[in-house]
Amino acid sequence: MREVMLLYVTASGPEEAKRLGRHLVERRLAACVNIFPEMHSFYWWEGKLESSREAVLLVKTRKELAEAAREEIVRLHSYSCPCILEIPVAGGHPPFLEWIYAETPSR
Amino acid sequence: MREVMLLYVTASGPEEAKRLGRHLVERRLAACVNIFPEMHSFYWWEGKLESSREAVLLVKTRKELAEAAREEIVRLHSYSCPCILEIPVAGGHPPFLEWIYAETPSR
Amino acid sequence: MREVMLLYVTASGPEEAKRLGRHLVERRLAACVNIFPEMHSFYWWEGKLESSREAVLLVKTRKELAEAAREEIVRLHSYSCPCILEIPVAGGHPPFLEWIYAETPSR
Repeated sequence: MREVMLLYVTASGPEEAKRLGRHLVERRLAACVNIFPEMHSFYWWEGKLESSREAVLLVKTRKELAEAAREEIVRLHSYSCPCILEIPVAGGHPPFLEWIYAETPSR
Repeated sequence: MREVMLLYVTASGPEEAKRLGRHLVERRLAACVNIFPEMHSFYWWEGKLESSREAVLLVKTRKELAEAAREEIVRLHSYSCPCILEIPVAGGHPPFLEWIYAETPSR
Repeated sequence: MREVMLLYVTASGPEEAKRLGRHLVERRLAACVNIFPEMHSFYWWEGKLESSREAVLLVKTRKELAEAAREEIVRLHSYSCPCILEIPVAGGHPPFLEWIYAETPSR
């Protein structure tokens, strides 16, 4: 079965999310990126409990490309320590998994 | 432990997402469907980088029903190759996992 | 590698989601909580197919704290049987995984 990975990434807002998402697809580091434009977060930062409005990217790519995609996000992201979590995919609609592979030619 | 699966599905918009979601629950192929009405996606389609507004369904069902739910989505979906990804669930609130089983009687 | 877990939780609306999210972070049961304020759900409840507007929390914590976080959510939640699903994380940006550990000192 084609091994696919989802990357869950947060961004400072919809504009940054779209900029990162388009870039990953353009560079064929992802077949598709889904952006959720409205998210509120709570977190500790330098000893204070903060809350802010952010956006989320869900990046669909080959498992073998997850690290390269992650490094590219870190390179371009406005945060010093961006949230990038890898969520495993157990399976899916076979033609869609094939499509992810077709759109992300191996390096 | 009860084995549960999440299906991550994209749709052309909130109306299609609700139609598919209601149908899956009605047919007891899912105990519950959560719909995120606003999502922007970037992807390659026929050699062009496209972006469009979509909606997302998160389908909660028994692991053993994931394939049947997937086939029903493909049957009804407006896309020729819909995004359906299976996200494994490691655990959860036991009574809720039981509830998912109670609402999706085995075939 | 640092073992991290995502908890997917639904709530009656953005206010409850924020109350629960802030509380988990305050108590250091989570390093960060992302809230999606708008979600529509379909589900069976007492023999009737219901639909309602809800909100979603995505709780980022250590794997070893998932159970304690889950119990605290159940204790405070307005539902009698809240949806709390544990989604495994396969990896991620190493400094971010370290940050999750740093913000959730072990009990």
